[in-house]
Amino acid sequence: MQKPAIPKGTRDFTPSEMLRREYIFNTIKTVFKKYGYAPIETPAMENLSTLLGKYGEEGDKLLFKILNSGDFLQKADNTMVANNDSTRFALQISEKGLRYDLTVPFARFVVQHRNEISFPFKRYQIQPVWRADRPQKGRYREFFQCDADVVGSDALINELELIQIIEEVFGLLKMEVTLKLNNRKILAGIAEMIGLPDRLTDITVAIDKIEKIGLEKVVEELLQKELPPDSVQKLIPFLNMQGDNTRKLQTLKNLLKESAIGSKGLEEIETVLFLSREVGVQLTIVFDLTLARGLNYYTGAIMEVKANDVAIGSICGGGRYDNLTGIFGMPDVSGVGISFGADRIYDVLNQLNLYPDHVETATRLLILCFGEKEQLHGLKLLQALRKAGVQAEIHPDLAKLKKQMTYANNRGIPFVLLVGEDEITSNTYTLKNMQSGDQSQLTLPGIIEKLNQNEDAI
Amino acid sequence: MQKPAIPKGTRDFTPSEMLRREYIFNTIKTVFKKYGYAPIETPAMENLSTLLGKYGEEGDKLLFKILNSGDFLQKADNTMVANNDSTRFALQISEKGLRYDLTVPFARFVVQHRNEISFPFKRYQIQPVWRADRPQKGRYREFFQCDADVVGSDALINELELIQIIEEVFGLLKMEVTLKLNNRKILAGIAEMIGLPDRLTDITVAIDKIEKIGLEKVVEELLQKELPPDSVQKLIPFLNMQGDNTRKLQTLKNLLKESAIGSKGLEEIETVLFLSREVGVQLTIVFDLTLARGLNYYTGAIMEVKANDVAIGSICGGGRYDNLTGIFGMPDVSGVGISFGADRIYDVLNQLNLYPDHVETATRLLILCFGEKEQLHGLKLLQALRKAGVQAEIHPDLAKLKKQMTYANNRGIPFVLLVGEDEITSNTYTLKNMQSGDQSQLTLPGIIEKLNQNEDAI
Repeated sequence: MQKPAIPKGTRDFTPSEMLRREYIFNTIKTVFKKYGYAPIETPAMENLSTLLGKYGEEGDKLLFKILNSGDFLQKADNTMVANNDSTRFALQISEKGLRYDLTVPFARFVVQHRNEISFPFKRYQIQPVWRADRPQKGRYREFFQCDADVVGSDALINELELIQIIEEVFGLLKMEVTLKLNNRKILAGIAEMIGLPDRLTDITVAIDKIEKIGLEKVVEELLQKELPPDSVQKLIPFLNMQGDNTRKLQTLKNLLKESAIGSKGLEEIETVLFLSREVGVQLTIVFDLTLARGLNYYTGAIMEVKANDVAIGSICGGGRYDNLTGIFGMPDVSGVGISFGADRIYDVLNQLNLYPDHVETATRLLILCFGEKEQLHGLKLLQALRKAGVQAEIHPDLAKLKKQMTYANNRGIPFVLLVGEDEITSNTYTLKNMQSGDQSQLTLPGIIEKLNQNEDAI
Repeated sequence: MQKPAIPKGTRDFTPSEMLRREYIFNTIKTVFKKYGYAPIETPAMENLSTLLGKYGEEGDKLLFKILNSGDFLQKADNTMVANNDSTRFALQISEKGLRYDLTVPFARFVVQHRNEISFPFKRYQIQPVWRADRPQKGRYREFFQCDADVVGSDALINELELIQIIEEVFGLLKMEVTLKLNNRKILAGIAEMIGLPDRLTDITVAIDKIEKIGLEKVVEELLQKELPPDSVQKLIPFLNMQGDNTRKLQTLKNLLKESAIGSKGLEEIETVLFLSREVGVQLTIVFDLTLARGLNYYTGAIMEVKANDVAIGSICGGGRYDNLTGIFGMPDVSGVGISFGADRIYDVLNQLNLYPDHVETATRLLILCFGEKEQLHGLKLLQALRKAGVQAEIHPDLAKLKKQMTYANNRGIPFVLLVGEDEITSNTYTLKNMQSGDQSQLTLPGIIEKLNQNEDAI
């Protein structure tokens, strides 16, 4: 007999895990909706032509490919098999793959449905994605992304609203966080000022590493990458900047005053900070020049959220992109978006135990019966309780009372109601608080009142 | 440039579709939770060893298989390629498949997590499943199942609760439905009484067809399948039964009185009908002997729901099974469950236009601004409105007023608020009802009051 198991890197979610995860997803959803973002969903499978080439060579390797149905060998060029050329043969026998992120399917969606959509189009999307990565702690082959994007508007108000969303989501989740903010145009301005506009990627990758390996090593790496020493020299003042947001921005204003794009980036970030102050954003926002993020498609704002009290990677990130839909033939659509890392947020909430008390128990009361006659009476009580909005259950089996009690305990159900022959005659039942052990004799209206009172207590 | 498209048989869901679907899913979820069913989720990918052989030969063919990552040809026996043996070669190069339904993954889950679960275990699960079926109207390659099952209890109270769930879900959705009820043990009793206990499958398949092809053809088919003519003759009184539930059950009591299993089935169905009456179930329940359903694993109750006002297949179905987890090495776990067909329910609600008014528009108000200064003021108003619980948005771009109006119209946003220079000075704004065209001059508290009043009106 096979021992049941699931593929490595994937997870089952038990009821208590699900209820905690739903609390996170529902919080995020509620805020997205409040800010006018509307839900969409796309299929788990996309055509490989949609996915390939969008995530770099490494990404292509990490795509899960679906084997064509039926007699797939018939249509394939089998000579590749002899050469053991798995990569090319894969494309002979599979046309579809599982989605790798929500961004590329969203771009495909916008282009495909351009005539049904009103722009600016604000959408959110909460769905799993799949990557054939090596599984390790905190990295899964199936995980959830929660994205909100607005496309078809380049107004900085959109950046502001995403910041407000971030503030509100983490406020509701009671998490202390810091928002790091940067602008790709500033990075481009720096590349321009040091005379290396084409080496933006090298520079940003290096800047991204400064916190991890320090200035000296970063300089070393840049020289190894054959950046001219005088350019690297010119870069150092940018890397060495100190002080609060205002001071840093002031320093940059001087350093970048001759770069049009750099000055534009500074103006954008200052506007976003100004608007945030005006509408009363309380979130800690740190302008962080080292924030570059791996993704190459950001063209304006770049943002990232870190938890203050737990050492874990970024729990939310995003930015502005100017040509996301270009790859599908629809140029000049500017967009900005953020993505919440639900799995990491889940880890942080677990670690700090930040869930509200109720989140894991839905059922408030279990009716325990001594026999068949009592059960029939219990079913009618149950019906009345449910009608009154009390989430209640009955133990379906005529099991021993102790077994029924254990069941209530294991399920974390806070109250049990005992129904015996005397109780039926008197219409008065014993309500037991499973935590305190307190018992009270109550009629049906009394039970309803007690449980509705206690809604927040236990 | 490639024209963006999705794989055939799959669907994108736009915001208006999503909001309508969420209304259905949320209704079902709320009722599941009310009855004490707790959510679980399982991975999209299962090991093929979990899936293969569980859905018959045809089902195996319809599984979407995932190509192994990396150099999959290295480990494969490539001789099969020469023979064009796609079926066997597939198993050389793929180990995982997409889930085909929620039932087999649930059985795997129960066995794998048996020590973390309290039995009876009541779970619900709402997730997509994938089948490489030929796509056609109403049949998709990716579709959602909404299952509720309880395992580890053979009490008929569980059947009763599923009936109550069905009544409540369709009541909330305002759909008129009929529940068909049968019991596999009655069918087994019939097979026994006509002397063919081994031909149960042939008989139930035939019975299942009676509505479609009529008695004569069914008899013909049975004879073709080489059932002895005298057995077929004995079957006819069962097929010819008339009358209401009570009369049919009475007829069967006589016909089946010498079959222990048949009598047990009758007793079960009578108990379920008795309990339903006792707790006040109002749903139309029809005992229907022709209800057999394709699935072979039901051992007790069989149920199916049909919409009264739309010609469409079953919109919900289920039954009791006694050995679901046996295939994974955990015998003797009795369970009973139902599955709502969300896609068909969606079709019915669309056809009858049964959605509540609000379901498609979340945003109630769009703030329109004449210029930059007005926009900044508008942002602060927006903040205050959102704090007061009014779902509002601002148009992010300083577009022409007409363009902003069109946007509100296209999005179905019921109110717009105009913010110009005068409005800022007087703190009095023009609120326009987009449907009636009515305008009123209101201060912020007035706007909040008006919109909260109108919550149910538009």
